Amino acid sequence: MMLFDKHLPTLERAREACRERHCWSPYPEMPKAYPNAEAAAASGKAAYEAMLGQPFDLDQPGTIGRLGEEISPYTQAPLGITYPQADIDALFDAAQSAMPAWARAPIEARLGALMEVLDTLYREHLFTLVHAVMHTAGQSYNMAYAGSGVNALDRGIEALVYAEEAMRAVTPKAGWERRFGPSEIRLEKTYRIVPRGVAVCFACASFPSWNAWPSMLASLATGNAVIVKPHPDTVLPMAITVRVCRQVLQAAGFDPNLVTMALDTKAQPLGKALIKHPKCAIVDFTGSTRFGKWVEENAHPAIAFTETAGCNTVVLQGADDLDAALRSLATTMCMFSAQMCTSPQNVYVPADGVDTPQGKVGFDEVAQRLADAVARLVEDPRKAAMIMATIQAPQTLALMEQMRDEGAAQGRVLLESRPYEHPDFPSARTATPLMLQVTPQSRELYGEERFGPISFVIRCDSAEDALSRATQDVKERGGLTAFLYATDEDFIARAEEAYANAGAQLTTNLTGAMPLNFAAAYSDYHVTGLNPAGNATLTNLAFVAPRFAVAQSRRPVKEGS
Amino acid sequence: MMLFDKHLPTLERAREACRERHCWSPYPEMPKAYPNAEAAAASGKAAYEAMLGQPFDLDQPGTIGRLGEEISPYTQAPLGITYPQADIDALFDAAQSAMPAWARAPIEARLGALMEVLDTLYREHLFTLVHAVMHTAGQSYNMAYAGSGVNALDRGIEALVYAEEAMRAVTPKAGWERRFGPSEIRLEKTYRIVPRGVAVCFACASFPSWNAWPSMLASLATGNAVIVKPHPDTVLPMAITVRVCRQVLQAAGFDPNLVTMALDTKAQPLGKALIKHPKCAIVDFTGSTRFGKWVEENAHPAIAFTETAGCNTVVLQGADDLDAALRSLATTMCMFSAQMCTSPQNVYVPADGVDTPQGKVGFDEVAQRLADAVARLVEDPRKAAMIMATIQAPQTLALMEQMRDEGAAQGRVLLESRPYEHPDFPSARTATPLMLQVTPQSRELYGEERFGPISFVIRCDSAEDALSRATQDVKERGGLTAFLYATDEDFIARAEEAYANAGAQLTTNLTGAMPLNFAAAYSDYHVTGLNPAGNATLTNLAFVAPRFAVAQSRRPVKEGS
Repeated sequence: MMLFDKHLPTLERAREACRERHCWSPYPEMPKAYPNAEAAAASGKAAYEAMLGQPFDLDQPGTIGRLGEEISPYTQAPLGITYPQADIDALFDAAQSAMPAWARAPIEARLGALMEVLDTLYREHLFTLVHAVMHTAGQSYNMAYAGSGVNALDRGIEALVYAEEAMRAVTPKAGWERRFGPSEIRLEKTYRIVPRGVAVCFACASFPSWNAWPSMLASLATGNAVIVKPHPDTVLPMAITVRVCRQVLQAAGFDPNLVTMALDTKAQPLGKALIKHPKCAIVDFTGSTRFGKWVEENAHPAIAFTETAGCNTVVLQGADDLDAALRSLATTMCMFSAQMCTSPQNVYVPADGVDTPQGKVGFDEVAQRLADAVARLVEDPRKAAMIMATIQAPQTLALMEQMRDEGAAQGRVLLESRPYEHPDFPSARTATPLMLQVTPQSRELYGEERFGPISFVIRCDSAEDALSRATQDVKERGGLTAFLYATDEDFIARAEEAYANAGAQLTTNLTGAMPLNFAAAYSDYHVTGLNPAGNATLTNLAFVAPRFAVAQSRRPVKEGS
Repeated sequence: MMLFDKHLPTLERAREACRERHCWSPYPEMPKAYPNAEAAAASGKAAYEAMLGQPFDLDQPGTIGRLGEEISPYTQAPLGITYPQADIDALFDAAQSAMPAWARAPIEARLGALMEVLDTLYREHLFTLVHAVMHTAGQSYNMAYAGSGVNALDRGIEALVYAEEAMRAVTPKAGWERRFGPSEIRLEKTYRIVPRGVAVCFACASFPSWNAWPSMLASLATGNAVIVKPHPDTVLPMAITVRVCRQVLQAAGFDPNLVTMALDTKAQPLGKALIKHPKCAIVDFTGSTRFGKWVEENAHPAIAFTETAGCNTVVLQGADDLDAALRSLATTMCMFSAQMCTSPQNVYVPADGVDTPQGKVGFDEVAQRLADAVARLVEDPRKAAMIMATIQAPQTLALMEQMRDEGAAQGRVLLESRPYEHPDFPSARTATPLMLQVTPQSRELYGEERFGPISFVIRCDSAEDALSRATQDVKERGGLTAFLYATDEDFIARAEEAYANAGAQLTTNLTGAMPLNFAAAYSDYHVTGLNPAGNATLTNLAFVAPRFAVAQSRRPVKEGS
């Protein structure tokens, strides 16, 4: 209980934030505000560098070899780190053996140990994780610190809050009495939280911790064990996570095999074998739509939580300050080279233009001004580097080339992509955004996620047509976020209803320095489950409650009691 | 809100009962205690009789014909009632059109209308339902009143309580402010409960309302529409339910097409077409293990809640009063001719006997005394009728014959089955229990649900062996309930843990007049999801929370506000 008591004040604040959904975090969001920031940053970087070219020390069962094929998007050189390759039966067996004592422990013991895991990641490993994320996922320093660091820790705490709420809804004991004919029956009933079994948590290449941490913690808090399956391109952040989990759980008196890692290679993926393993009971998957669909259809009897992708949409009806709107949009389209599941891709613009206080601004002008805004952002390599960082995977460059040609054939290229020179990493894999102007006839081109800095400006008949196409694309092809600029309040009301039914989280008329797709733990719900982009809502009760069962036992009250 | 206010005191008591899990119900459980019981019973019966041989008046869309093939297990004569056969596209379209206004209504409006549905079923239709259940499911009068009447209404209220809890966990609005670099961002956020879509609720032949009512109410409360798919043998109780839902919803100002009925025939089942319909978003299924497995594997993208079956197990280690234990067991094995999903089927007995204060009672003697206890219960036809009622389906008799022959070949027949003469219905389809004595070698015989009054007494090596086999059979083959008689407290503790992990709800050392398999709403959890017997826990948060999504919209706070 000591760890629970230690972290209770934070948990209490987090519970309140989840209830009220206001802005709160126990962590400073700027690296500079980290305690003793300069020394911590330096030693985190040194710790990262010391890992390069070395076997990663992860003492887990069933090691049958070593694997490692990570290449830094910043240097395009291999990290040279190798990790244990595990026999998956051994991992499942070890996970299952670890569970009974963990499941029997009081809720407070599990929550305390898991809060300690998050706190340890924050206090001891945050800056190491920053470099690990940079050189695998390819994020900028600041995004690796915030989005993959403290924001992801917040998502983890949030998952614990909801797991606790769902478990506390089950009273551990009850007395029950009733007359049946001649008998007065008095029963004592015991209700147990029974974990569903071994969870497999897939982490994605470009944004591993933000989804994986809450998934892992939701499973662990409810008594399950977790096998982490990182993307072979982005292992190090998850390997550090797994090691910290194991150390903290062991120090708290639990079996470290509650958390292990199953690594594979791109040439020989393990995913299906893990999911179809007879001991797999829960799957959390973040990644491609194609495999995510396979997971949803084939995970049974395991339950599946997925976050895949879709075509996130923007509808422009009007703006009080069109330049401010286009600037915000441009920034968000450039952010981490649009390699976030929340990045906008499709911009639906009425052919007759966008309403402004100065009158209608025509379609062509809107498209051009948006392209200009993007172009301006990437002019200065230093600014470009901060916003766009790198391209995680070489195949994204190939996709961009293909899209450019198809877009040029079907419509026109609004903005050509080019590599930009990263000021700190001259070998970085970079690309400025590719923007294509098309009509709704090109739906097969834009109607699915085109991962990377690729966007489409789509000429629609009218604002109504734009909204109708955008929400239909979301409903049928998937979409997590949506963005609207509008001056007509009735139109906004219709858009809010249409996007709610399509299941995309809508941001309206936001301008200024906040990235439009910023999703705050404790306040912004992520993924609805209403369209093909997945069902893993961070975090609501549906994300946690199915991870455990309630088993009861009842017996007559002993006489005299 | 008027209806909500009217029913709020009951809801408040129900919330408290769900929290504390004590014994409570707003309804008297004995028919005699119903208000103005004699007149109500007579007019309910008259209303039932007036329906016989008539077209059932159900004014719903898409009617393309009429169907009806119900045969009373009491008279073995057709009821002669015909019901609308619906075009399923028309039902889905109508359901979908009905949803937006229902989903937009405040939670209180939905809960109020649904409490009114339950109250109307209770006040105006309970005794009609009793006869409808008797002459389709074949239950006794008292069971139809309690198990399929007031207890099922309780399960409905319980579902509303949890649906409310899950929805109230989502605040409808929040203010959020944070600094991003130079900008102070102030957002107002709106969170909507968005129903998942059209639900299809399958009701089973032998116990339709107890599972279907909570499923329907869980879906409706969270804003969905429901298409009810009754078993073609047992339509009338669900047709009455659907008609009452439609009338009450319409009177409350909502579209009656929120609830419709899709009837099929045994020769031309509609189940798969309903589940694979592109507008099907939720499936609730109670029925056979075979089709339940198909549902779980194929419902996607719909979510599925299932309650199928399994081999419910009994372990005998010891008893302070063996006769009392065997009497309770015998009664429960006879109850409704073991046609309940909670009926015990497999009795695991140590070869070296059962501990009692008088010493060990040997295996053969235990088996014989259990068979004698069953035989005594069914000697008197009046008592037999009250406990066993009828056999719902003719194929159960065929199965019993087959099991008798296989059991005799592999082991021995402990108790032969015979028809008994029902005192009130001379043509009733009846059968006294068949009991077979076997060894674990006959696992293929007893290791699945054998629906009807068929039980197996299984000779195990020891009490430990009995427990180990019983819980393994549950885990691998499914099981909802489990029963234990034991005098060794360590053994009880091990059994509680083993059954919790296998996912069966355990009752230990219960004797007296309460049927061992009685499951009380607000107190007893039903189905765990941890074994192949289904995943529809009545009722926990996991049963309700996935039925809706949370969609948010956020925009800058208007200046000056």
